[in-house]
Amino acid sequence: MRPEVAFWIRLVEQTAAMSFSDRLAAAVRRTRAPILAGLDPRWEQLPEPLRAGVDPADRTAVAQVYAAFCRGVIDAVQGLVPGVKPQAAFFEQLGPAGMTALAEVLDYAHRAGLMVVLDGKRNDIGSTAEAYADAYLGAPGLSPWGADALTVSPYLGDDSLAPFVETAQARDAGIFVLVKTSNPGGGRFQDLIADGAPLYRHVAQLVEQYAAASRAACGYGAIGAVVGATYSAQLAELRGAMPTSWLLVPGYGAQGGGARDVAGAFDSQGLGAVINNSRGLIFAHARAPYAERFGARGWQDAVAAATRDMIAELQAESTAGRL
Amino acid sequence: MRPEVAFWIRLVEQTAAMSFSDRLAAAVRRTRAPILAGLDPRWEQLPEPLRAGVDPADRTAVAQVYAAFCRGVIDAVQGLVPGVKPQAAFFEQLGPAGMTALAEVLDYAHRAGLMVVLDGKRNDIGSTAEAYADAYLGAPGLSPWGADALTVSPYLGDDSLAPFVETAQARDAGIFVLVKTSNPGGGRFQDLIADGAPLYRHVAQLVEQYAAASRAACGYGAIGAVVGATYSAQLAELRGAMPTSWLLVPGYGAQGGGARDVAGAFDSQGLGAVINNSRGLIFAHARAPYAERFGARGWQDAVAAATRDMIAELQAESTAGRL
Repeated sequence: MRPEVAFWIRLVEQTAAMSFSDRLAAAVRRTRAPILAGLDPRWEQLPEPLRAGVDPADRTAVAQVYAAFCRGVIDAVQGLVPGVKPQAAFFEQLGPAGMTALAEVLDYAHRAGLMVVLDGKRNDIGSTAEAYADAYLGAPGLSPWGADALTVSPYLGDDSLAPFVETAQARDAGIFVLVKTSNPGGGRFQDLIADGAPLYRHVAQLVEQYAAASRAACGYGAIGAVVGATYSAQLAELRGAMPTSWLLVPGYGAQGGGARDVAGAFDSQGLGAVINNSRGLIFAHARAPYAERFGARGWQDAVAAATRDMIAELQAESTAGRL
Repeated sequence: MRPEVAFWIRLVEQTAAMSFSDRLAAAVRRTRAPILAGLDPRWEQLPEPLRAGVDPADRTAVAQVYAAFCRGVIDAVQGLVPGVKPQAAFFEQLGPAGMTALAEVLDYAHRAGLMVVLDGKRNDIGSTAEAYADAYLGAPGLSPWGADALTVSPYLGDDSLAPFVETAQARDAGIFVLVKTSNPGGGRFQDLIADGAPLYRHVAQLVEQYAAASRAACGYGAIGAVVGATYSAQLAELRGAMPTSWLLVPGYGAQGGGARDVAGAFDSQGLGAVINNSRGLIFAHARAPYAERFGARGWQDAVAAATRDMIAELQAESTAGRL
């Protein structure tokens, strides 16, 4: 799809005040690709042509490189996938200059017709949670950062999630609550058994309540769950237990999850999940077979090729092929 | 203490590479006040003279007012308390301009000889957690934001905390992990019983291990716990269960905790805890008896008076009086 077309489709959806969930479902169907491209700029892994001549100790200069790199990724995946997931930490690492770059990247993604799920894992209580929700959720103009959705951590309990839920619904935005994460130590607390069920199932139950209460025409709500790709059994289990919750699935590629591992995250129509891939897409220029085919200078072509390959993998191995 | 003196004391401590824990203990003993002044700028509650003529929809202008307000609070509490706890959410709410203001506030606090515990409740896994730790922990020069300590959420498990612990130790900084929070819904997950103990005790056990492994001359480690002032029984319970962990205690004042409620957070020497008070100190100008005594124009005197009163309350009701 040409950039202008994506931009106009998105503008129509926003103007019509489509819910986050319906916008995401429409974008997944349009692209036939339930994928987010993770924007995790890491200095050492950026294509050499972007780093050349830049002092890595100069945070302002590095922030400009990060923004340029992310714009390049956005150009490469535009029209191929529904959206991007910028990781806030890498921008915060550069201080205020990094935060300015983050805002530029979000704006650029919106103009490219891509949805933005900001991975910030924010959480707090009461009016402080309201401030986070107000900061990040909602289209540009409604919030300074203008993300379509934000990741949120649940440790502080239900009254810490409520402000995010309320703001998300008021602004046609979404949130993804951490439920079962992809790291080896994720089980330390998430797998503790209380009242006959692991902690992550208790969190899942609360998320599903919020999702059901915000259910849109596509069948899913504005509140979803983060469930790692490295636990395929739990993905299928949670797909069943959370019938109206979108699943945001990190851990594909570099963290070890593959297309077969995430197959259980989708419903019978191929909907209900978006799979994030960061390093596997954005740093494709550095690994086989893309390194040989494209080289460092062709890094954007490598991103696009790796994205197409991931789409094909998902369509071959899961109900995403029915989209 | 005159500002220049506090500055030089702090410079000596930093140059001597004193650990976070020993710096905090020294500052608590020096001030005889185990208190952090919470920097939670909220537009509607700022003193009227600061808001006059400023368009609340102009985020850059509001960010400048937030920075001016926080500098005013810092001037008022300098020498009275060990440090300040800026709440990141209120600055993030203003977009990039807010983040620039946050950096200015941290820098100003350091120059005033105050320690900074940044309340960001960050959390992530692996190299992303490293990026957050690198962003926030360590004196200016070591990290772009230059906080002495950061609050961290534990849901992602032990391998998500490890990067924060390692960076904190390498940079003589600290972290405070959410254990038992002060909000009514905090118990939703934190109080779930697994293996015979509530979840927060499982988290407390891990925090105490990290604290013991980083124990400094003062007897406490670089890793501490956030435990709300609204649960006095759990405060005393956790003081006993976490003998080498600093407790950061929010919820004093506006959230309902008083000097008697937090008495159990201290050890027999009056050490081991710092009590945060945000609204009760920084917005003292708007409540009795300070509103009558100082008025909106005397808001900085109200902050100083409320701080002195809180110090006296703690010294009367707890072992903090032995400091």
